Amino acid sequence: MQPRPDLIFYFDFISPYAYLAFPEVLRLCEHHERNVIPVPVVLGAMLSHHGHLGPAEIPSKRLYTFKHVLRLAHERGRALTPPPGHPFNSLLALRMCLATSDIDARIRLVGRLFTATWGIDGPGITQPSVLEQLASGIGLDGGELCAQATSPEIKAALRDSTSEAISVGSFGVPSMLVDGELFWGLDSVPHIDRFLKGGDPIDPDTLAQWQDLPALAQRKRPS
Amino acid sequence: MQPRPDLIFYFDFISPYAYLAFPEVLRLCEHHERNVIPVPVVLGAMLSHHGHLGPAEIPSKRLYTFKHVLRLAHERGRALTPPPGHPFNSLLALRMCLATSDIDARIRLVGRLFTATWGIDGPGITQPSVLEQLASGIGLDGGELCAQATSPEIKAALRDSTSEAISVGSFGVPSMLVDGELFWGLDSVPHIDRFLKGGDPIDPDTLAQWQDLPALAQRKRPS
Repeated sequence: MQPRPDLIFYFDFISPYAYLAFPEVLRLCEHHERNVIPVPVVLGAMLSHHGHLGPAEIPSKRLYTFKHVLRLAHERGRALTPPPGHPFNSLLALRMCLATSDIDARIRLVGRLFTATWGIDGPGITQPSVLEQLASGIGLDGGELCAQATSPEIKAALRDSTSEAISVGSFGVPSMLVDGELFWGLDSVPHIDRFLKGGDPIDPDTLAQWQDLPALAQRKRPS
Repeated sequence: MQPRPDLIFYFDFISPYAYLAFPEVLRLCEHHERNVIPVPVVLGAMLSHHGHLGPAEIPSKRLYTFKHVLRLAHERGRALTPPPGHPFNSLLALRMCLATSDIDARIRLVGRLFTATWGIDGPGITQPSVLEQLASGIGLDGGELCAQATSPEIKAALRDSTSEAISVGSFGVPSMLVDGELFWGLDSVPHIDRFLKGGDPIDPDTLAQWQDLPALAQRKRPS
């Protein structure tokens, strides 16, 4: 029997779009018989690499983004409530996910930590003791995972996974890599569905036209 | 008879999302009996104000953005073909639109120039002679508009409209301002529809919770 091909879900808990996308990607992959591999990345490091600002780093865009995700959550009938603060430090949570090498267990942990961040009355995911409890609450060894998460190996692995995402073309989260094609954002989930059905409208000839488009003007980059 | 209330459509021809959104916003406003006022703004100046980068300014995001809009155009059955180059200087085209004070005429001109940019075999909108022909082709005085567009008054008016958009909270295009509420992007058109039907899920109490959310971490801003 052929193994099910993978879809890699690059995420950071900091992103409410990634929270909304995760269950949709799981459902899509169930339908198309794909394995979801959730791979934590550090959004801040990704933005720094590109010299870019995240939506929360421009005051007017920060508030707009919250309204936007509230509208998207409402359309989907999903709970979305404010975490204790935002932005927050997601590093320990991301490293615990990387330390969970069994992928089914990792999927459960990622789902649990997304809900603890953005779901109703979520405690947030910045406190080690809370993270330990959350992991233990779904049958994992929370203490052991917390300990592993602070090891130099896991810290290096998170840097590596962020670099890997950048190297395949990612510039934000969630990013989904499937059959060599990268998709970005909650709104791309229907595009992945069409891609997996063989109906993606992007062909190499069309893409080449756009790829080679000359730049006729260039803005002075912000300093 | 009460005058129909306005919806302001802040745009720059540089944005294929604005091209896709424009007819959708016109249809929406016809349905909800709103006047559309297209207001040209300079996306580059808006990005500079916020210290932000546009999608075309990050190499991996530039190509992804083209794929993304091709998929969105395909879903809508809309033509989307590459302009002669991108980014390009849209200033003269934007100023000609501002110089067209009759709003019905401006709407026609904006539509024509969007199609000349992103439609099939569009000639682009950077050459004065082409702009003059395009305006004349829809019954306007292209020569006169081109001349007016280079006046100090119209140049100042474009700076003012960009500042106005920023002052109401805009950080990108297309932005739509209706009844004091700002919406951003092609994907917000259905949200505007819901808003105008009285079904927007954002209430002041909910918003206050998000607005006052403390920042628990801060990334070093790119230098």
